[in-house]
This record gives sequence, C-alpha cells and structure tokens, in this order.
Amino acid sequence: MASRSDDDPRIGDISEGAVLRAILARTAPAVHAVLGPGDDAAVIAAPSGSIVASADTLVEGPDFRIAWSSGYDLGWKSAAVNLSDIAAMGAVPTALLVSLAVPADIRLSFIEAMADGFRECCAQLAPGCSVVGGDLTVSERLMIAVTALGDLGGRSAVTRAGARDGDVVALAGELGMAAAGLGLLFARFRDGAAAVPVDRSTLDPVQQGALDRQLRPVPPLALGPIAADAGATAMMDVSDGLALDASRLADASGVTIALSGAALDELAFGGDRGRALGGGEDHGLLATFPAGAVPAGFERIGTVTARADAPVLVDGRPVAEAGWDPYRDWDHAR
Amino acid sequence: MASRSDDDPRIGDISEGAVLRAILARTAPAVHAVLGPGDDAAVIAAPSGSIVASADTLVEGPDFRIAWSSGYDLGWKSAAVNLSDIAAMGAVPTALLVSLAVPADIRLSFIEAMADGFRECCAQLAPGCSVVGGDLTVSERLMIAVTALGDLGGRSAVTRAGARDGDVVALAGELGMAAAGLGLLFARFRDGAAAVPVDRSTLDPVQQGALDRQLRPVPPLALGPIAADAGATAMMDVSDGLALDASRLADASGVTIALSGAALDELAFGGDRGRALGGGEDHGLLATFPAGAVPAGFERIGTVTARADAPVLVDGRPVAEAGWDPYRDWDHAR
Repeated sequence: MASRSDDDPRIGDISEGAVLRAILARTAPAVHAVLGPGDDAAVIAAPSGSIVASADTLVEGPDFRIAWSSGYDLGWKSAAVNLSDIAAMGAVPTALLVSLAVPADIRLSFIEAMADGFRECCAQLAPGCSVVGGDLTVSERLMIAVTALGDLGGRSAVTRAGARDGDVVALAGELGMAAAGLGLLFARFRDGAAAVPVDRSTLDPVQQGALDRQLRPVPPLALGPIAADAGATAMMDVSDGLALDASRLADASGVTIALSGAALDELAFGGDRGRALGGGEDHGLLATFPAGAVPAGFERIGTVTARADAPVLVDGRPVAEAGWDPYRDWDHAR
Repeated sequence: MASRSDDDPRIGDISEGAVLRAILARTAPAVHAVLGPGDDAAVIAAPSGSIVASADTLVEGPDFRIAWSSGYDLGWKSAAVNLSDIAAMGAVPTALLVSLAVPADIRLSFIEAMADGFRECCAQLAPGCSVVGGDLTVSERLMIAVTALGDLGGRSAVTRAGARDGDVVALAGELGMAAAGLGLLFARFRDGAAAVPVDRSTLDPVQQGALDRQLRPVPPLALGPIAADAGATAMMDVSDGLALDASRLADASGVTIALSGAALDELAFGGDRGRALGGGEDHGLLATFPAGAVPAGFERIGTVTARADAPVLVDGRPVAEAGWDPYRDWDHAR
C-alpha cells in the first residue's frame, strides 16, 4: 500500500523531529505555561507557590491492548488517569509531560490521534491544562509515561492521612463501570488469548457506555478542589478498586473505613457490589469529610471509625482487599 | 542459586509494593518537597511562582547496555541528563519523578543501586533535589522515564531564542569526553555485536576518565543559574553534539554561531575537533552572553553573527550538523 505509506508513514521511517512537529501541531496552546514545548524545558506558572506532581505509565499488555484502544482512546486515558491524581490532592491540573516509547511500525496517524486524545481530555476535564513537554523513543512495546502537574491555588494538599473517627466517607464518580467495560473486552473481543477489535454493534447501549468508560474514563476532576475547599480531611482517587484503595486510605490515616452495603449497591454499576468493591479504573474520588461538610457531587457511602481489626468493613464485616488487575492476571508475569 | 534468589529476588517474584519500599528506603528526604512519595501526588514548593519542567527517557538498546552500565550508573545518568535540562533554563533543580519499566528477571539489588545513583547524583550535582514520585511497571526492556522540575528563583528562563548579533558564544563543561568513552565501549567491550562487561584494568587512566564521563556524566549544573544571573541571552545543554545543538540555538535565535577552531581544539577532549563537534552526551552548557559578561566557568568558543547561509560556522566555514548517535546507528531500526 504505497499510497498509505506515503500519506501515513510508519514512525520508524520518519525523523523524530517530524513526529514531534506532527504532535505539537495537535497540541493546545499552553495556558498555564509561560513557555511550552521546544526548548530544554517548559516554564509553568505556579502562582500559589506550591505545585503537585504525579507520574503514571500505561504499558501495552499490562494496561491496554492496541486491538481494543484507538490512539485517541490511549491519549485520553493516559491524560485522565494522571489528571485524576492531581485532582485527588485538591489541586487544579496545569500541565502534562508525555514520554512516548513507540514501536517503529506504528503509523503516524495513530500518534496524531493520541495527541488529539490528550488535547481533548484536557479540554473537557481540565480546561487550561495542556501538554508542555515530553520525549519520544522507539521500543518494542508502546509505553506512555506521563507526569502531571497541578497548582493548589492556596489550598492545603489533601492527603490520604487525615481521616478522623466520625468523618463521613463519600465518593464522587462511577463505581464498577470501567471494570464492567473491561469485562466485556475480555469476554467478547478475544480470539483465544489474542485481543480482537471491538464491534460496538454487538453491544447494547448500557454495555457501550461501560466500554467507553473503560477506554476513555471521565474522572470527576473538578470535584477535587471543591472537596478540598469543603474541608475534606483525606482524599484519593480510586484506581485499583474501592476495597484496596479504601484500605490504603485507612492505613495512612490509622482508621477504619466502615462502608454501607446498601449505599454501595445503590452506586454500583449494574448493582454489582463485588465489582464495585474490586473493580478498578473508574478514577472516582474517595474522600472523608467532617459530618455535614459533604459537597454536592459526592455520595455518602460510609463512616470513619477508630481503627478496628480490619481497615475496611462493609456492614461491619471485613472485606478482601484484592485489587482489580485482569490484564496482568491474564498473561503477564507478575 | 537459591541463596542469592532469597537475598536478592528478581523483580518479577516480589510485589510492586516491596520494590517501591526498597527504593524509597534509599531515596533522600525531600528538601523542596512539602510532601514526598506515597500519596496520589507529591507537593513541591515553588516559592518564585514559576517552575521549569522537562522529561527525558533512557531506553535499553538505543541509550544504554546493561552489560556496560551498573544500576548505579543508570540511576546517576538518568538523573544527570534530566537535571541538565533544568540548569540549561537557568533554574535550580528541585524534584525528579521516575517512571521505571523493568524486566521481570532483573534483581532487586540492581534497582536498589539505581535508587542510590539517583540519590548520589542529586546530592553531588543538585543538592536539595530528590526523587519525589514515580511509578513501576514490568516490560521486556529496561526504560527509565524521568521528569525533572526546577525553580527559577525569580530569574527569567533562558531559552534558545535570545542570542543576538555581537554576543559571545561560550561553553561550560566537557567537549567530546563522553563520546570518547562511548567509543571505547564500542571498540573494546563487544563480542561480535553483543556488549560485554567492561574490564577497567585494560584502560589507562585517561580512558577510564572518559568511560566514567560516558557512564556517569557530570554536567556543570550550578553554572546554569550563574549564567542566567550574568545575563546569558540564550542557553541550552549540549546533548546531541555541539554542531547540531549549536545549529538548534542558531535557528531558534535567527542568528549564526561562528565558532573558533582554535578554541575548539583547546577544549576538545584529546584534541579531537571532529569528536568535539559531533560527539554528544557531555551535557555541557552552551550559552551566549553580551560581550564582557561571560562568567567564570565558561570558556569563550566563538561569536554570534547576523544570520548567514549556515547556522554554524567554524573559522568561517559551514560544518555538518550530524549528531552523535552510535547506539542507534549500531543496531537500531531508526
């Protein structure tokens, strides 16, 4: 296909400079950045005098399949999961740095679509945040290593360690929806062990919605700073499953998180409590507040108690803390 | 070797949490960080109200060989090359975020040594800077994706774009030494195409010094802010070779960099002008200053002129801009 090769070259056949120019042409102008991509480093305004920074990497295999995710999906998801960590501190995302390791046979259009996904995710979930730097290398497997930066705007960072006996436990965002979408991928779009492209026409609208959340999560980023302003005593994003992440917050704070089974059943996607507790990747915000301080957008799901034997209880009974990691369970060494 | 396996497990045989705890135990306490590793994000002081941020990735194969580099070397070099981009803006490095993708069969001691290398490089070249976050994934090839952050301390960032006709061109740091060390590796420590461990006893002291600079570069980081304070009009770090990097600065500034052959010969490691122009990875600082403003630590190597036909001249003649990339030339697709 000579014509496709001309119009849409493989990454290995063009210069790094050409790839970077194509990416930059699709990157939104920097709002918080005083100086964007192209120099030795970007310069980013930090008017409040302190910033938050977090890094998270998506790797082909353990974290995604190219057969299931478009370039746009991967750009979106890589942005969203990193922006979520910034919001979970109570900060507003300002900038992303993206280090791509790309197989030489990937088409330029795939990388361009990834740049579109980064841009649109920022535009929709964290307006003003944009990609301000990064780098590009060649590797056998696609890897997307992102660092996200944010500004606290004068707020104190909300850590995992401040929950107190008597606080309300609340959640913003979905519970089990991304895991339901991942379950569909594993159940319906494989040929033996191999991932095959998704045929959306075989899914009903609810299933399509779950699939979309798995491929392009929509974490409630704007509620992070709102929770901080409302007095959240502890907060984190739920990436590895509510049971496991709640146990981390409980351990960091030295308390027990006592969840209500009825509240979980109400919020759980499809009413599936097990998936609500074990399913990850929703990137909702789990937070604790003084009684009466829970802001709109958060749903009450339990209370903080003095430390009991177990870090997390549901209706008074301990729950397993196993997180959700079917990619890794499926074919990965770890 | 059951005993070694017990004492020094492979990364694939222990939990991510155990690896991270081992790394954190070797990470220096954060000086600039209000909140270090362990939460959703780190919090870093930015007292001057703006920060600089840069990302660079080292990949096994294109960038290093495990046969040639110890874990300590790799941690050191990954820190140094990223810190250098911060210094090249005139900023003081404050924090690193490190995303590691690690083959499952690598020993924990290798990763611990890498953490030591990160810590000691920061301690020696950028005191107060430390690793404040990152993540860990498993992959076939070792990849080290680093984001470096720095504080401008009220200075304006020194970009590549400010050089003016009549400025002095000056360099701090080495010229061709890292390339000489890499040349030794390729010439002396291979079995066919495969890298084999270095036997330092076969090298004379000068060769050992060059090898050390290739494996553990010592960029003149402290001179970055000093150059900014002295009035540097443009600055960048020399990572891909003086000729190529000077052409980038010339293009960004719309000027020509006219270098003195005699000055290059004096600074060039081993007096090798070709390697001085083409050899990369020294991470010296290339800067332009108003006449009379060159600070101690920088050597004058040329002048800035109005834009001529070529971006870079040596004794009035154009030079090729090819950068130094023998790893890639040797066995890589690009």
